Amino acid sequence: MRVERLAIIGCGLMGGSFALALRSLDQVGTVAGYSASANTRATALALGVIDEACESVAQAVTGADVVLLAVPVQATEVSLRAMAPHLGAQTLLMDVGSTKCDVVAAARATLGSALSRFVPAHPIAGKEMAGVAHAEAALYQDRQVILTPLAETDSALAARAQALWEAVGSRVCRLSPEAHDAAFAAVSHLPHLAAFALVNAVARQPEGAQYLALAGPGFRDFSRIAASSAAVWGDILLVNREQVLHQSQLMRAALAELEAAMSAGDSARLRALIDEASQTRSRWRLGGQPTDL
Amino acid sequence: MRVERLAIIGCGLMGGSFALALRSLDQVGTVAGYSASANTRATALALGVIDEACESVAQAVTGADVVLLAVPVQATEVSLRAMAPHLGAQTLLMDVGSTKCDVVAAARATLGSALSRFVPAHPIAGKEMAGVAHAEAALYQDRQVILTPLAETDSALAARAQALWEAVGSRVCRLSPEAHDAAFAAVSHLPHLAAFALVNAVARQPEGAQYLALAGPGFRDFSRIAASSAAVWGDILLVNREQVLHQSQLMRAALAELEAAMSAGDSARLRALIDEASQTRSRWRLGGQPTDL
Repeated sequence: MRVERLAIIGCGLMGGSFALALRSLDQVGTVAGYSASANTRATALALGVIDEACESVAQAVTGADVVLLAVPVQATEVSLRAMAPHLGAQTLLMDVGSTKCDVVAAARATLGSALSRFVPAHPIAGKEMAGVAHAEAALYQDRQVILTPLAETDSALAARAQALWEAVGSRVCRLSPEAHDAAFAAVSHLPHLAAFALVNAVARQPEGAQYLALAGPGFRDFSRIAASSAAVWGDILLVNREQVLHQSQLMRAALAELEAAMSAGDSARLRALIDEASQTRSRWRLGGQPTDL
Repeated sequence: MRVERLAIIGCGLMGGSFALALRSLDQVGTVAGYSASANTRATALALGVIDEACESVAQAVTGADVVLLAVPVQATEVSLRAMAPHLGAQTLLMDVGSTKCDVVAAARATLGSALSRFVPAHPIAGKEMAGVAHAEAALYQDRQVILTPLAETDSALAARAQALWEAVGSRVCRLSPEAHDAAFAAVSHLPHLAAFALVNAVARQPEGAQYLALAGPGFRDFSRIAASSAAVWGDILLVNREQVLHQSQLMRAALAELEAAMSAGDSARLRALIDEASQTRSRWRLGGQPTDL
């Protein structure tokens, strides 16, 4: 399981935390890192997250037995194209993106024969503070990681990917890329969309600032995800827009039901709809074991 | 400030916690409690929350210098009617309801000359677990309490109400009942409505259970309030339905803007809308000081 040379492409929170987690387990030899920004590379080196600050993707991945791609969405394809000719014949390549169909399409377009060594991954982990300065060895502890291997994927490398994520403390499940994107449109992208909409709707009113000053713990928790990065979430919502728009329509329909019960003064119906949600949410537990889709 | 005889009408989480808070400060003589359920009265007595378990509202409020009404919404009017003839000439009456225009209307319909001694109150405090067994002296610590005194309200009693809530650790602000209900439609009732709608929309899909098993911390926090009581929230949403329906329309419009940017593939517009929400939420702090509306 030990990694001799880990290359992290994108020295940020996600890549940096993966490197630190393997280091804390003494399961990595050398960590090579590439970021487009020389400043970021220098910071990652100074913090001891990486051992080698590389000036190109090619340099970082050369000789690596494991490559973790952890760049913003718009840099995915160019990074894959840059590394493809330099990936070793046994090198495991993974990403950490929040959407999977787009990454798989980019991989098919760029990787050629290296496609079989790519195991797309989505760790359900993060923090509101991005950047390598916030990287920590425990980020993936007790989190879920979804792997979406392809028909072409080498099964030994998929097993190695799973073993690595389990080593850093995560629980792994496997989905198809399509099932992944449909599921996360519902349970992640839609809540973000709704939180953005609600915060904008409240704040734009003439009394919005005064209303917000009165908000309590319910609003705090509901709206926490509305503070997320516009760059990251603009990309996620666009990349997965068909699924997200579908989920948004389902939510509008559920909202219309509640509104109709209110308008009709139908207390029994309104309570039944709320009770449905309340029972669902009361039964729900973080990290419940999914069956494979 | 000391209360000689406190009557709590409704021995639950809210009323019980108020009694315990004054007890912990040694600022109350006797606590009389009434609940419709004999079981609840016995529990409150056994837990030391009340000193006298009363079999009627009249018995509990007789001789009390402070009365706290903390019953479910549908019991408000009947409780006010029962206590009106028995309230002392200097007795301060408060409630703890989440909506204020309905309580004020019930008070106008029932209290007669005692109306001037009523100071409507809404403590922004609570827990997911209701009932006197969950009452605690610290419930109101560092929380906001909104008072909505009327034109008729005795100003000395409004000042006493404020002093009592400050004594138990709360920050007090004053709003009109109408401004209160408009504000809480936006920052409390709308988030609940949206959370109920989203949980129902996700769970009802054929793959809903599998999707929910994949949900992470973002979903956990966003949907926490969806676990709220159907009885309590059905009443709140119905009582304040005009304001809540108005807020829901504003949220639908904000959602439509986001959806339009996604459909058009307009990344700049989508990021601008998300950034607006992100900046608002990043600046927001729990318990920010509101200016009086």
